[in-house]
Amino acid sequence: MILNKVDIQNLEQRYRGTFINSLVGFKAVVLVGTKNSLGGTNLAIFNSLTHIGANPALWALVFRPATVERHTLNNIYHTKNYTINFVNAVHYQKAHQTSAKYPLAMSEFDAVGFTPQYIANHNAPFVQEAEIKIGLQFEEAIDIKVNGTILVIGSINYIELQNDLVSHDGFVALEKANILACTGLDAYYNTNFINRLTYAKHNTWPKII
Amino acid sequence: MILNKVDIQNLEQRYRGTFINSLVGFKAVVLVGTKNSLGGTNLAIFNSLTHIGANPALWALVFRPATVERHTLNNIYHTKNYTINFVNAVHYQKAHQTSAKYPLAMSEFDAVGFTPQYIANHNAPFVQEAEIKIGLQFEEAIDIKVNGTILVIGSINYIELQNDLVSHDGFVALEKANILACTGLDAYYNTNFINRLTYAKHNTWPKII
Repeated sequence: MILNKVDIQNLEQRYRGTFINSLVGFKAVVLVGTKNSLGGTNLAIFNSLTHIGANPALWALVFRPATVERHTLNNIYHTKNYTINFVNAVHYQKAHQTSAKYPLAMSEFDAVGFTPQYIANHNAPFVQEAEIKIGLQFEEAIDIKVNGTILVIGSINYIELQNDLVSHDGFVALEKANILACTGLDAYYNTNFINRLTYAKHNTWPKII
Repeated sequence: MILNKVDIQNLEQRYRGTFINSLVGFKAVVLVGTKNSLGGTNLAIFNSLTHIGANPALWALVFRPATVERHTLNNIYHTKNYTINFVNAVHYQKAHQTSAKYPLAMSEFDAVGFTPQYIANHNAPFVQEAEIKIGLQFEEAIDIKVNGTILVIGSINYIELQNDLVSHDGFVALEKANILACTGLDAYYNTNFINRLTYAKHNTWPKII
């Protein structure tokens, strides 16, 4: 199958959305926890988590204006903090269900069956059942002119995970906790570790770590 | 293991880089093909591919200033086009090896053993061995103030893949081509498909597609 720019433009809209979203490859699945101005909790699935930097530790999420995720964006702007939670693949249906359009007054935690968990000095709820829990503070929102999406960057101020996931050099073996992955908007995966490779040098072939 | 903001700041620099980079979760591995101003080819591994929109079809890559990937960024700015190539997991060592610092005059295609492939009206080389080949045109570079990284957005103007990877609704089943995934800077994975789920609605549980 070969498609040029015009072919892509001429695809039926839902087909194109599914096609381009799944073509972009494997992604992390995260649940983003926030609190609204009335104190209600919100939990939403995202597949757009992106590493921006390690020092300081900065991650980004991509938001589309006027979508179901609007609750999450409003809450981040209002409270300035949010949580990113990585779950075991056994929870894939509950994770997916957080994308349903619930009324503002209904918490996705209750609706899908996850438990809110709090730590000191962090307004937003974590997912108690999550294998890895990250607390973030809002840093910067960047408007992407070309299509109106918004890149929201946060700094990491809290990390919680089991010790046995972390190697001596800092590597986190997500597969040991059966962390969920995805493609597109609705396809879920778990993973098989192949290998880690040594830092690549031009005069030798990489070795297995 | 629990770390707060100060704990994260106090981690040894390489440990923190490995830790934060791998913690962000599963990601696509892509090989980015470009041509430099002298006509030489360049091929570089990236793990920061991000979906920005489907209509028009826009994807982004994150670049750090003054890194080995500088060749790629300069080439994109100069020629305005580039390719994104998804490879079978069997090629993970060759893909990784493109991250070595080769001199400008040496092509990573030759160095690691991939074959450049060209199409009409597209300056940049594709990877002939790739399972999925995407041609992009540079659209917008966004400076991320908080740490100086650059988000480079391109529009898709060419897509090539096997018909049997694409479902009737446009979904691309990457696992059927054993497409490579990764975490961090050096860990490679392949995947197991769990299920696709129906569009989530607040009054019912999602079904398997």
